Amino acid sequence: MVDVVKISDELVIGGKEFIIIAGPCAVESEEQMESIGKFLSGLGIKILRGGAFKPRTSPNAFQGLGMDGLKILKDIRNRYNLKVVSEIMDPRDVEKAYEYIDIYQVGSRNMQNYSLLKEVGRADKPILLKRGMGATIDEWVKASEYIRIEGNDRIIFCERGIRTFEDYTRNTLDLVSIPIIQSKTKCPIIVDPSHGTGRKELVLPSSKAALAIGANGIMIEVHPNPESALSDGFQSLNFREFADLFERITNMERVLKTIV
Amino acid sequence: MVDVVKISDELVIGGKEFIIIAGPCAVESEEQMESIGKFLSGLGIKILRGGAFKPRTSPNAFQGLGMDGLKILKDIRNRYNLKVVSEIMDPRDVEKAYEYIDIYQVGSRNMQNYSLLKEVGRADKPILLKRGMGATIDEWVKASEYIRIEGNDRIIFCERGIRTFEDYTRNTLDLVSIPIIQSKTKCPIIVDPSHGTGRKELVLPSSKAALAIGANGIMIEVHPNPESALSDGFQSLNFREFADLFERITNMERVLKTIV
Amino acid sequence: MVDVVKISDELVIGGKEFIIIAGPCAVESEEQMESIGKFLSGLGIKILRGGAFKPRTSPNAFQGLGMDGLKILKDIRNRYNLKVVSEIMDPRDVEKAYEYIDIYQVGSRNMQNYSLLKEVGRADKPILLKRGMGATIDEWVKASEYIRIEGNDRIIFCERGIRTFEDYTRNTLDLVSIPIIQSKTKCPIIVDPSHGTGRKELVLPSSKAALAIGANGIMIEVHPNPESALSDGFQSLNFREFADLFERITNMERVLKTIV
Amino acid sequence: MVDVVKISDELVIGGKEFIIIAGPCAVESEEQMESIGKFLSGLGIKILRGGAFKPRTSPNAFQGLGMDGLKILKDIRNRYNLKVVSEIMDPRDVEKAYEYIDIYQVGSRNMQNYSLLKEVGRADKPILLKRGMGATIDEWVKASEYIRIEGNDRIIFCERGIRTFEDYTRNTLDLVSIPIIQSKTKCPIIVDPSHGTGRKELVLPSSKAALAIGANGIMIEVHPNPESALSDGFQSLNFREFADLFERITNMERVLKTIV
Repeated sequence: MVDVVKISDELVIGGKEFIIIAGPCAVESEEQMESIGKFLSGLGIKILRGGAFKPRTSPNAFQGLGMDGLKILKDIRNRYNLKVVSEIMDPRDVEKAYEYIDIYQVGSRNMQNYSLLKEVGRADKPILLKRGMGATIDEWVKASEYIRIEGNDRIIFCERGIRTFEDYTRNTLDLVSIPIIQSKTKCPIIVDPSHGTGRKELVLPSSKAALAIGANGIMIEVHPNPESALSDGFQSLNFREFADLFERITNMERVLKTIV
Repeated sequence: MVDVVKISDELVIGGKEFIIIAGPCAVESEEQMESIGKFLSGLGIKILRGGAFKPRTSPNAFQGLGMDGLKILKDIRNRYNLKVVSEIMDPRDVEKAYEYIDIYQVGSRNMQNYSLLKEVGRADKPILLKRGMGATIDEWVKASEYIRIEGNDRIIFCERGIRTFEDYTRNTLDLVSIPIIQSKTKCPIIVDPSHGTGRKELVLPSSKAALAIGANGIMIEVHPNPESALSDGFQSLNFREFADLFERITNMERVLKTIV
Repeated sequence: MVDVVKISDELVIGGKEFIIIAGPCAVESEEQMESIGKFLSGLGIKILRGGAFKPRTSPNAFQGLGMDGLKILKDIRNRYNLKVVSEIMDPRDVEKAYEYIDIYQVGSRNMQNYSLLKEVGRADKPILLKRGMGATIDEWVKASEYIRIEGNDRIIFCERGIRTFEDYTRNTLDLVSIPIIQSKTKCPIIVDPSHGTGRKELVLPSSKAALAIGANGIMIEVHPNPESALSDGFQSLNFREFADLFERITNMERVLKTIV
Repeated sequence: MVDVVKISDELVIGGKEFIIIAGPCAVESEEQMESIGKFLSGLGIKILRGGAFKPRTSPNAFQGLGMDGLKILKDIRNRYNLKVVSEIMDPRDVEKAYEYIDIYQVGSRNMQNYSLLKEVGRADKPILLKRGMGATIDEWVKASEYIRIEGNDRIIFCERGIRTFEDYTRNTLDLVSIPIIQSKTKCPIIVDPSHGTGRKELVLPSSKAALAIGANGIMIEVHPNPESALSDGFQSLNFREFADLFERITNMERVLKTIV
């Protein structure tokens, strides 16, 4: 239904497999990432997320470890044979980050940062393009064309919720965008239920809905100790919770395949 | 997980079965309803929807057949052994409509019509309470308390999308509201993907997501000839499309039950 | 520019004068209303607002004094030669309330309560039609047609803010709706900055903007003792604050007239 | 009430004068800018707007003249003794653009482009920070802190409308944000009614409201021939319309000063 995006020789997004990306909101330390990398690879997770450059609403909030964070990510990637997705915010960092990450993430706040889109459009790595909080589907698709026009068509969309008047959840997850994006662009799309809902108890049900509606994967925030996370702890799963989600989603994927 | 709402001796909403309610936006004629009633009961559908009093944005649009429409609904109900859900907009119609319908629907525009809520709260029939287009989850729950406080606790919520800036879909379907409502109220909740998306091609994927996230049912617009429907034809399924949806959702329900 | 709506032989809305309506959110007691009526008529205010039937989000909140409240309003009206605007929520109350009030208010929650709109459309009193929190301008105009089609064209629109993601203010006051409504409908329109902003310190600046953009009036919540008000105290002005607003707006109106 | 931001020895924003910035959406040619510069300076306008780098939703839309556009702006600036505000989108362009412009504009799409904010925070020129379409007031204030923390406190906010469900206007102009920003930040704030409404007939009434509510200025799109503009012609005023607006706003400013 969609064209696959190749991540490595053995791994694609948009194929038959529902891809579960996991990791902490922010790379905090070697110890934290070692613990997470070991845990996730043990479960069979193939792609690790982790922010080195953190776009924080306030300049006084933790801004991420920057290049040091990317180095930690690379170590863990090599040790545990994981692929890595991490956000880049500055066009000048695209080249610097090249050797450390496997998928460039363009975050919500930068969905219409056209300089950045063009820069990653010139890189030969897949791009994870998150939806802007205030962006229509049409604007999101047009933002992806800034990447494509530079020659890079390995684009993976990521629905992460939009701004609405509803304030019980952090954002309103627009799951219906999934079949729309797939049909309009032929690109794969994954869902980020952690940011989309902002509440850990809603991550599992949202993940089930994402799988059922045909998303090509999910991206989940996992932290060894969410209570002490440097950002977004309230929406991160701990290891036990994530292992439970992983098992349930994997089971659901398995039985759904029997009826297609 | 939620308390069941009894519709009849054999039928509950909120139990183990995922309930599929179907029917036209508006009752247009005996012939139309005869055709729909026969088709739906043949598939095994147990609850028929159909509007007799239609809340239309403009007073110049078709306003429904009123009491004549209710009489048609009752005939079809008896002939095909269906239960009927239909919208009431005026507190003075609650008593009049009592013998014709099995579930009173309070529509989006009337979610905070407190006179109506109190009046249906005094009736001994289940209430389907649709979410207001501009209503938060908290306001929706509080609206239900106007019904409950009058003595009626047979409340079924219905998510039908909220108003956002996204204009590709008619509304933004807030599927994450489902586990929230279930957890806060212990009431069952169904989804209306026809109004929630406003596009027929999105009804099936949204229905799958509703099932997977744990909704207790869906309500689907079906019309023998959507192109000539007196209202909302663009979001109504024809018989072939609905039969396909019914089969797919039923299959999905079956396999999902194997993994709970 | 708009057609005037006649309130009495001496009073119109939509004419050259900018009309300032004031009063408490809810009628609480004779003493409260006596104090307010005396104060407002002393300033020269001609229309008193005050809720007898209160549409409250929760059934456990104060619901208003009902018919007793209307009787208090009528007493004050007669004693101080004020006109009275008050909200009606139930079509069955339109006739009952007829002798007590001069302008029927249809509130935000009932903007699309078509039974109520038709009922007030059959009354020979002016209607103040507030905008629904989730309603587009087009839907608001179409709602007014339900009144007009029954024969009542004395319609005054009231902008009171819409639901958006911005949460610093209670609603987002859409002041640009004012010239749009005037141009589309030829009806007068006033602004409710108390509900529109939900913060007393923003009532004066919003009132200035309403006057400058061409609104035909404003409606302000005033309470002798906002801290102890039974509803919406945080957005009500006390007497001193209202007297200050009245003087400033009156002065602004005077100087703006010199440049038209 | 707010701290003034100095633009030049003779010109501040945030002082007693209401500043009217005007110019085309995009710099299109020398001839166009010569015509506009002559017209505006003749009226007494002191700050010219004009986009050289245009953030367009689609990569296939006109992207602006880039550095060539900046050179044209500089020529016009010198010839007509105007100050120039123009948008920068790429942190790498901040230094390059330094000699050509007097006020750096950070556009809506880049309100949370933190690399760009930091870069302009290190420049010794005033910054015009537009509100993001989906940004709360709190996020907007926090975005400004990224500039301030680098040492630049010459920040001018610009309200340009937010994303809502209302689709008659391009955006919903949140005029109430003006007193809020002034009170929270002590920075001046201007309004862009051209983008805020997206309709030329609403530019004048919105400008009046902006003045009355206490904004420190407005920024208006003017084009010699809006019908043939390369972008946003439908919201641009022609010379005659702008001269009319200029006279009316100047008159209103004059009479309002008599009552402060």
